Amino acid sequence: MAPTPERKKDYLSMDLSRLLTSAGINIGICALFLSLYSVFRKQPGNVYVYFGRRLSQEDGKLQNINALERFVPSASWIVKAWQITEDELLSFAGIDAVVFLRVLVFSIRIFSIATVVCIFGVLPVNYFGEVKKHMAIRPEALFVFTIANVKDESQWLWVHCVALYIITLSACILLYFEYKSISGMRLAHISNSPPNPSHFSVLVRSVPRSSNESLDDAIKNFFTNYHGLSYLSHQTVHRAGKVHKFMSTAEKVYKKFVRLKVTQFDHKCRANKYRCGLCGGTSNSFQLYHDDFEPDANKGGQDRSERNAEKKECSAAFVFFKTRYAAVVASQVLQSSNPMLWVTDPAPEPHDVYWPNLWIPYRQLWIRRITILVASTFLMILLVPPITLLQGLTQLEELKEKLPFVNIIIKRNILVRLVSGYLPSVLLQLLIYTVPPIMMLFSAVEGPISRSGRKKSACCKVLYFTIWTVFFVNVISGTVLNKLDVISTPKDIPSLLAKAVPEQSTFFMTHVLTSGWASLSSEIMQTFALVYNFVRKNILRLQEDPESVPSFPYHTEVPRVLVFGLLGFTCSILAPLILPFLLVYFFLGYVVYRNQIMNVYCSKYESGGQMWPIVHNTAIFSLILTQIIALGVFGMKRYPGASGFTIPLVIATILFNEYCRQRFYPMFNNISAQDLIEMDRDDEQSGRMEEIHQLLLTAYCQSAPAATSPDVGDDDGSIISKVSITDRSHEISITAHPTWDSRA
Amino acid sequence: MAPTPERKKDYLSMDLSRLLTSAGINIGICALFLSLYSVFRKQPGNVYVYFGRRLSQEDGKLQNINALERFVPSASWIVKAWQITEDELLSFAGIDAVVFLRVLVFSIRIFSIATVVCIFGVLPVNYFGEVKKHMAIRPEALFVFTIANVKDESQWLWVHCVALYIITLSACILLYFEYKSISGMRLAHISNSPPNPSHFSVLVRSVPRSSNESLDDAIKNFFTNYHGLSYLSHQTVHRAGKVHKFMSTAEKVYKKFVRLKVTQFDHKCRANKYRCGLCGGTSNSFQLYHDDFEPDANKGGQDRSERNAEKKECSAAFVFFKTRYAAVVASQVLQSSNPMLWVTDPAPEPHDVYWPNLWIPYRQLWIRRITILVASTFLMILLVPPITLLQGLTQLEELKEKLPFVNIIIKRNILVRLVSGYLPSVLLQLLIYTVPPIMMLFSAVEGPISRSGRKKSACCKVLYFTIWTVFFVNVISGTVLNKLDVISTPKDIPSLLAKAVPEQSTFFMTHVLTSGWASLSSEIMQTFALVYNFVRKNILRLQEDPESVPSFPYHTEVPRVLVFGLLGFTCSILAPLILPFLLVYFFLGYVVYRNQIMNVYCSKYESGGQMWPIVHNTAIFSLILTQIIALGVFGMKRYPGASGFTIPLVIATILFNEYCRQRFYPMFNNISAQDLIEMDRDDEQSGRMEEIHQLLLTAYCQSAPAATSPDVGDDDGSIISKVSITDRSHEISITAHPTWDSRA
Repeated sequence: MAPTPERKKDYLSMDLSRLLTSAGINIGICALFLSLYSVFRKQPGNVYVYFGRRLSQEDGKLQNINALERFVPSASWIVKAWQITEDELLSFAGIDAVVFLRVLVFSIRIFSIATVVCIFGVLPVNYFGEVKKHMAIRPEALFVFTIANVKDESQWLWVHCVALYIITLSACILLYFEYKSISGMRLAHISNSPPNPSHFSVLVRSVPRSSNESLDDAIKNFFTNYHGLSYLSHQTVHRAGKVHKFMSTAEKVYKKFVRLKVTQFDHKCRANKYRCGLCGGTSNSFQLYHDDFEPDANKGGQDRSERNAEKKECSAAFVFFKTRYAAVVASQVLQSSNPMLWVTDPAPEPHDVYWPNLWIPYRQLWIRRITILVASTFLMILLVPPITLLQGLTQLEELKEKLPFVNIIIKRNILVRLVSGYLPSVLLQLLIYTVPPIMMLFSAVEGPISRSGRKKSACCKVLYFTIWTVFFVNVISGTVLNKLDVISTPKDIPSLLAKAVPEQSTFFMTHVLTSGWASLSSEIMQTFALVYNFVRKNILRLQEDPESVPSFPYHTEVPRVLVFGLLGFTCSILAPLILPFLLVYFFLGYVVYRNQIMNVYCSKYESGGQMWPIVHNTAIFSLILTQIIALGVFGMKRYPGASGFTIPLVIATILFNEYCRQRFYPMFNNISAQDLIEMDRDDEQSGRMEEIHQLLLTAYCQSAPAATSPDVGDDDGSIISKVSITDRSHEISITAHPTWDSRA
Repeated sequence: MAPTPERKKDYLSMDLSRLLTSAGINIGICALFLSLYSVFRKQPGNVYVYFGRRLSQEDGKLQNINALERFVPSASWIVKAWQITEDELLSFAGIDAVVFLRVLVFSIRIFSIATVVCIFGVLPVNYFGEVKKHMAIRPEALFVFTIANVKDESQWLWVHCVALYIITLSACILLYFEYKSISGMRLAHISNSPPNPSHFSVLVRSVPRSSNESLDDAIKNFFTNYHGLSYLSHQTVHRAGKVHKFMSTAEKVYKKFVRLKVTQFDHKCRANKYRCGLCGGTSNSFQLYHDDFEPDANKGGQDRSERNAEKKECSAAFVFFKTRYAAVVASQVLQSSNPMLWVTDPAPEPHDVYWPNLWIPYRQLWIRRITILVASTFLMILLVPPITLLQGLTQLEELKEKLPFVNIIIKRNILVRLVSGYLPSVLLQLLIYTVPPIMMLFSAVEGPISRSGRKKSACCKVLYFTIWTVFFVNVISGTVLNKLDVISTPKDIPSLLAKAVPEQSTFFMTHVLTSGWASLSSEIMQTFALVYNFVRKNILRLQEDPESVPSFPYHTEVPRVLVFGLLGFTCSILAPLILPFLLVYFFLGYVVYRNQIMNVYCSKYESGGQMWPIVHNTAIFSLILTQIIALGVFGMKRYPGASGFTIPLVIATILFNEYCRQRFYPMFNNISAQDLIEMDRDDEQSGRMEEIHQLLLTAYCQSAPAATSPDVGDDDGSIISKVSITDRSHEISITAHPTWDSRA
């Protein structure tokens, strides 16, 4: 199973010089971009591009930036990004951002260990594996740095085995403590943060229709009947939809608007009331309805029947409870003996609600989910051929035999290096950049009730897609060109991977350089935003609105970081040369993302660290994959002892994961009764409950623009942050405690 | 891909006459056993064997049986078994028995349809598939009745496709209505049945230890603190274990016994109190402790410390609540922010509690589960070789080439028929009979808290095992002898199955005859019980105790019935000749099991129809397997049109299953708030609540013998039914409503 002569030739073609070329190119690009950034950020014109969050949240702080000399590149921003503490980040960027940075910290830690172990332990063993090579070949082929260079039945393979042990164990230890601290942080964050309307609310869907009572009465009766002690009020979600109903809608809204003025003045939430009037007024397809503001007296028979007619289409509502505990209970207990009726879910935060999905009939959801599952799988398969094609470019030697015209290119040496070392993964990038929006659309169609839920599910989809394309498709396609009997039987997959991964290590390295470093520098440059801003200001001559601040694109960044982790783990003992490049990437990423979170992105809603379980599982998956590949390698190299040592490691890793799932995972799904009741008691003792109940009635506002179409990506910034601004007026009204949405 | 000449020869060897031989043998055995049964059941000596349940529950009714003439076979029992209504069964045998009979009804219905369709539609097509065969061959080979006899590219394959459609659709329709009616029945059963202590109780495990307060105080404080309004009381579960603690235990029990007399007289549950005293008194390794019967006054410091010392080992308790709803809430909400502490589960019924497992530390459970999973998988693989071996006996033609001595046997024709038609599946039976006890032991080690849970998990294990051995191993091993490249790639599994299943149809038929019919007749004969009873009476000269009544062995019977269903579905369009035999089996089984449930088995505990989801999923699995095999067949026969029609059928079946999971499955896991609150209200309005709360305190009694060792099988009859008898005294004490355990 040792590399055959022509494979060797293939390896030789991937020599150091080509790798260094691409490394040089990327280092240059990074340096250029970073210094450009350090200049651009000082231009007052770009202030909305590079300091969006600050402008929208802490308006005062921007003077001192202009005071600096403007056209000299400086590294001050790195210092600033480095200095900010986790607590500060937590306070304004929310827990999701901190968790994301923790992912980078974890990666830095584990891969520092891996680098030390593999560069000083494994690399020499690989290099001196077959001594004769080095005399023969100039320029040095990368192949000699991979495990493929180690002689069969070489006793030195125990070094790889030990390295695998060290990496796995330290990874598990780090993962355990990260999981522990993050779940603790999540808990502390929830219990210390100001009272959150979502904790008091439940979203009830598929309320059964009855001809004789209106939707409101049905909900009111049901909850007063079965949750009478804790039921506070509710707010139905529905769309009038038909155009011919517009007039009645408008007049009803006007009525409500007036009624609001009358009834709500003492509640001191002028902004909110105004908002409700506004979005109701401008609503063309949605309307907001509060049963609490409408005394039963003026519910005439015809009025009710009319309302029935309008509410035919949607049977969802937010139900508010007096205590957090009651809300959780109502959301977790099966309400009706027909599981498809009175479906209750914990309500998302007001800004997190994804209104367009709330009217989706509940019984559609499962079929939507299946459809989307099939669609995304189809998409993943659909994109295999192009990826395989451009991956083929890294193996020009094979292509030369197949396509004669390639020979002409091969002549021009520098071009070859560019093409075969650099171009493929750039193309791969362009291909991969198109995917997140599609996945976001898919996730929106799936019907999540919250933006964070949509983003989380998009994150998973993109993650699967990236792992599939970047890792598996490359590995398989890279070998498909040589022999077509891949996946012949499941049991020789390890040996297949063991052969393919070292061969692909060059591609992975260039991928780290191009996709990793380049994406970071383009991330900090905010190229698109920069251009858009320029066009907007100088051509369209539009006014900047300080509210259109993007929210952090977790669904693209998390998978990217995780996939680099996967590459790092799988290549660590096979081709350790990739580790330094990765480490640089993670360090750079840490600084860059801190800076971006600090300055650019505005976190309008958060999932409460829901990301971490995904990260944890991906890390475990990477570890197990690494171990399986190692098994294949040890088998190929006919060194059974090491295999014998590796199998218990696999089992231990699986058990560790199972333990973490038992110990920590439930905390990410629901809050414990103990904590909820404590929080309730605090609020009751401090007499805050009354205010909270008042605010609850107006916390959820169905804002029109966000509701018109399932918005893909983060284009809903404007509405949300407008809401958050108006909401901030509560801060004045309630002196006792901070606002609902200090984190928005 | 059509059968090769030597395969044909092989088919010919499995001719009708051999099948009829084995059919004859089995019909004879059945007739014999049934008539024997109809005589034996009239013998007064066997009354405890054949009328155990009646004796233990409805003592009066046994006179008229002796009055009949005793030595004439009669079919009166069939009539009796037929006449009894479902409601009667429900009243004394519980819902599990009814669900089990529903499985048989479902099988009868669907296979009647399948028989009609396949015998009159598919069979002729198969038979006249290749006309020339019939002239050539005498005796008629079974092969000509299978789909293997149909010419390639024959246009008649559309008949098979249509038959598949009819079977799948009718199966889905039947499944839907069964699921609906059973979930409705379950609901009605729960809400109409007398108040059940398990509805008011929660089992809390892994209560955190603290040095300064005792376990009781900890539990009391926690629940009064967080569930103060609804917390009623609790009862700790723990074992003293050490022998040297026996004395103190005994004296404490005596104290309690006395105290009980004093405090409990007014509660009118003399029997209960007696019971607690009894089992406490005879307890050598367990003790019962009620904090409610012990006023705080005499909890001296040293007394408490002593109790702590004893309770070190176990930190589980039953917590009783004032209402059903409160109990459900407490059991479903995450209690502590550490998910491994204060773990609450819905309590099982008093007789359903599996005491030996309650002291298992909660953090052990997940690792136990994994261990058992591995162990059972290992067992399944371990048993493949013997099964393969005896399966080889049905293919003497292959063996003849391999083992020369077989030729001598072949000479004796009748022997051949016996050996190759009958013996293998008898051996298979013996092998399979050893598995359920092992699986039961595995399930006990897994750590379920209820007997029904243990039985359910054993049922699943046995089911997987039976499907694996009876179907897959046979199919694969049957073809392994011919070509060894099985499971070469996943994608040609359908065609493999398509080839193998018709070949194995003869074995499946004989399996239905031997395993099916024979097992039914031995079931009704109760051979073991009969012999045991005889020995017991005439040799050991022991007194019968009317309480040692076995409970129904769902974990062996359900898998058997389901696997015959699987065989029926998979063979239906490939080898329709099996269907009549199956139909006879199901009819016979319906009568036999009704009779056994009516007379023999006593249902001491029930899972509330938890079995049905298993049945449903197995049926769906069988359908999809059938469709996949059909796909393979249509591919083999090069009839693409039919494949095109089959794929949507597969998708439709999956979607149907998903819908059922959404619509019905939740109802089998938890009862809806609506129903619980209604039940609570009824009890409160009827003023029954007080009595219920009184009874709650004594409902759960830790009985010693059941607790000494994890009992495998149903040998725990005696204790349990003793308890049930004493419990029945509540019936007198509470005149308003029936007893706790009218179903025990």
